[in-house]
Amino acid sequence: MGRIYVLGIGPGDIDMMTIRAKKILDECDIIVGYKAYTELIRDHFRDKEFFENGMRGEMDRCEKCVELAREGRTVGLICSGDAGVYGMASPLMEVAEREGFSDIEVIPGVTAALSGSAVLGAPLSNDFCVISLSDLLTPWEVIEKRLRAAADGDFAVAIYNPSSKGRPQHLKRACDILMEKLPGDRPCGYVRNIGRSGCAKKICTLAELVHEETDMFVTVFIGNSRTKVWGDRLVTPRGYIL
Amino acid sequence: MGRIYVLGIGPGDIDMMTIRAKKILDECDIIVGYKAYTELIRDHFRDKEFFENGMRGEMDRCEKCVELAREGRTVGLICSGDAGVYGMASPLMEVAEREGFSDIEVIPGVTAALSGSAVLGAPLSNDFCVISLSDLLTPWEVIEKRLRAAADGDFAVAIYNPSSKGRPQHLKRACDILMEKLPGDRPCGYVRNIGRSGCAKKICTLAELVHEETDMFVTVFIGNSRTKVWGDRLVTPRGYIL
Repeated sequence: MGRIYVLGIGPGDIDMMTIRAKKILDECDIIVGYKAYTELIRDHFRDKEFFENGMRGEMDRCEKCVELAREGRTVGLICSGDAGVYGMASPLMEVAEREGFSDIEVIPGVTAALSGSAVLGAPLSNDFCVISLSDLLTPWEVIEKRLRAAADGDFAVAIYNPSSKGRPQHLKRACDILMEKLPGDRPCGYVRNIGRSGCAKKICTLAELVHEETDMFVTVFIGNSRTKVWGDRLVTPRGYIL
Repeated sequence: MGRIYVLGIGPGDIDMMTIRAKKILDECDIIVGYKAYTELIRDHFRDKEFFENGMRGEMDRCEKCVELAREGRTVGLICSGDAGVYGMASPLMEVAEREGFSDIEVIPGVTAALSGSAVLGAPLSNDFCVISLSDLLTPWEVIEKRLRAAADGDFAVAIYNPSSKGRPQHLKRACDILMEKLPGDRPCGYVRNIGRSGCAKKICTLAELVHEETDMFVTVFIGNSRTKVWGDRLVTPRGYIL
């Protein structure tokens, strides 16, 4: 019986993977993943076998992993960012629970909240929330409740999946909800294509964010009540000096 | 004029650093950090110069980095976990803002919310909060407000610094606050010494967590309303099957 490693590869560039993730992928018999992510790393694992499929193929990917492991193979299931945060660790464990398979090891990686923060400065230096605006698996009412709770708690917030072709207005709707409780001049920012070619950042206010064009490749950051803009950086001071 | 890299080295084991962090430290003239963290990596950088100091020496460390960079040196300021999340990126930027120094690059790393989740299973697969129970820089009333907001928003929660010698009751107080809104049988877990020798995990309920002994080397996880215990794993299903 083989083992399944579920690995977060970070934002995209092979160097943003942990050393451990790279070593494990080097040892795997087969690498499984969504094809947009396998393409990011394929050149570094040229002698490997790959199994890849498209968006919404998560269940097929997990079932394939269990099938391959039961054939005795060592499987590396990759996700962008972290393995856990909106990643494949949870769906794999759903399938594994149903199939009675348990030899799984999770290898964490740098999620976009961290890699995007690093590009912007240090917006998430203190307590923060991560909220996805995708309502494919989470009802929109729950997302709204979480946005309001994040504002009530004065959390800095990292927003994943701010909008997509199917839901172009989600970020705007989220900003409107946040502005019921937060000032329009609250410092915010976003990063596109973190750690990939075309990486770009912008710092703006919450009121301005409403009008920004975003997509699935953008991570948005909402400051807390202490967040400042210093030069081209978004920083939440922890209170040592400022 | 030199540059300051502020790098998250992950939970402790050198292999949990990103490849990029390792490459940058290899190129730095001097590595600066809290001595408990420099000790974790010193053997891998034997020919390097180190500047290290003790707990609460954050400001001295940041000032030293700016001074060294102004002498033309390339400086690697390390933190455990991520560079941003309760890390040195923010205090360094406070000092740099005051000193008019700006050549800083932030290299993210795997924070304990991610590395601890990987040990437990996949508790943070959906929207989550990260809250520190240290009231050194954040008033306890703000921490209480955030705990209540996290419960209201049905967030999974990663709790950092659950207790210490100076505040042995903080985790108990936090659990009591959460139990005003959450059921006592809510699945929870914690991990001690993530990625280091002596790494250990425990899964328990929120009511049981009140009685657990924790310290600064423990990260605690509170499930959301969907979180399950499957075998020895804590998993928040995203809703594909279960």
